[in-house]
Amino acid sequence: MSAGQVLNEGKSKKMITTDDPEVLIQYFKDDATAFNGVKKGIIGSKGKVNCAISARIFQWLETEGVKTHYRGLQSEIEMLVDRVEIIPLEVVFRNVAAGSLAKRFGIEEGTELDSPLQEFFLKDDDLGDPLLTRNHVLAFGWADDETMDHLIAEGRKVHDLLTEFWKGLGIKLVDHKLEFGRRADGTIVLADEITPDGCRLWEIGTDRKMDKDRFRRSLGKVEETYAEVADLVAKALPLDAQV
Amino acid sequence: MSAGQVLNEGKSKKMITTDDPEVLIQYFKDDATAFNGVKKGIIGSKGKVNCAISARIFQWLETEGVKTHYRGLQSEIEMLVDRVEIIPLEVVFRNVAAGSLAKRFGIEEGTELDSPLQEFFLKDDDLGDPLLTRNHVLAFGWADDETMDHLIAEGRKVHDLLTEFWKGLGIKLVDHKLEFGRRADGTIVLADEITPDGCRLWEIGTDRKMDKDRFRRSLGKVEETYAEVADLVAKALPLDAQV
Repeated sequence: MSAGQVLNEGKSKKMITTDDPEVLIQYFKDDATAFNGVKKGIIGSKGKVNCAISARIFQWLETEGVKTHYRGLQSEIEMLVDRVEIIPLEVVFRNVAAGSLAKRFGIEEGTELDSPLQEFFLKDDDLGDPLLTRNHVLAFGWADDETMDHLIAEGRKVHDLLTEFWKGLGIKLVDHKLEFGRRADGTIVLADEITPDGCRLWEIGTDRKMDKDRFRRSLGKVEETYAEVADLVAKALPLDAQV
Repeated sequence: MSAGQVLNEGKSKKMITTDDPEVLIQYFKDDATAFNGVKKGIIGSKGKVNCAISARIFQWLETEGVKTHYRGLQSEIEMLVDRVEIIPLEVVFRNVAAGSLAKRFGIEEGTELDSPLQEFFLKDDDLGDPLLTRNHVLAFGWADDETMDHLIAEGRKVHDLLTEFWKGLGIKLVDHKLEFGRRADGTIVLADEITPDGCRLWEIGTDRKMDKDRFRRSLGKVEETYAEVADLVAKALPLDAQV
């Protein structure tokens, strides 16, 4: 499809219009940020790697009955997606305490949780994406009860699929963030990306970090590790031929 | 009752044993802190004022069918209370957006909420009393579902009573924090204190602040305003003669 205008540009992606009003190009940048934009950098080839990982995972999730915004690839750093209105809630699932959860509640990082812990955060960079309770979401109209129930149920389905998927690659899914959007017809679909930027991935056995914490915490081998994850995903999930 | 040892001392109160193992003395200090102890000071006569306000309100709540830890006064700055195990959840109710809620979610202070908003915070000074969702409470065992349901229902009852009570004094109850504890027999009772330290109270019509925000925000007339609140409460709620 022919690219039109940049509709909006975020920290790691930009959305570009096409000649189909219901389809956008999701362009993956190499830019990396952490701590709500305080730490900035470039992870070489991240755009390409994250685009490939996301495309393969979205395509596979569709075969598992999950509705997503994925429509195919435009190039190796551009994905064609449904134009959706993003629901302003980050839907987080955690199998292991790490990052903000560990810090917020004084839980030792690496503590296994008895069952997946689900959290909502408000998508708002200016406010630092604050934690939300259901009462807050309802009080300020960020979503209604029905939408939250849907996000929790659909998110949990995706969480269970991804936990098993990564496990099959020798990787523990520690936690991850999902975003959902509404198509013009009202259908809620999984949107955004599924990449090491938004997941914590620890190698099973060694707990070696294979995600954006390598950048956040300056652990080195950032690009190599992203590429390694992409290779593992590519071997497990072949990409359909693009039209 | 004769006072024994200081069992523990907090920022604004200390708990002292008595010769009855099920009864403690709750001693009200003049010390004031804000921003999790970063700002410190003394509010003259606060101990006396807060003890009087709390005693009168607890006594009245009991007549309204609310179980509390209140057993009477030991002196004008000492209250006799049930020895309870404090449940480590602050139960907050809000009628109007203010303070941390306004800041966290970018809501203009003073915005009236359509219905009372209930929040839980973890009672943990070292962690800065973080906001909790029900999922966090369950995941880390801070309380079970039944206890949370009880705290929400009983807290809401107290909230509705107090909202009407303060309204009768020409004061808007903006928000307030409740704490609950378990007696040795397992009964959950309202504990801690009900004072301008833990409530936001705005004069109806002028929105003049009549609570600890006068200290937090250095608004002046701190002692005078606490005394004014105590006088209003004393006129509305006579204290029973002490045995």
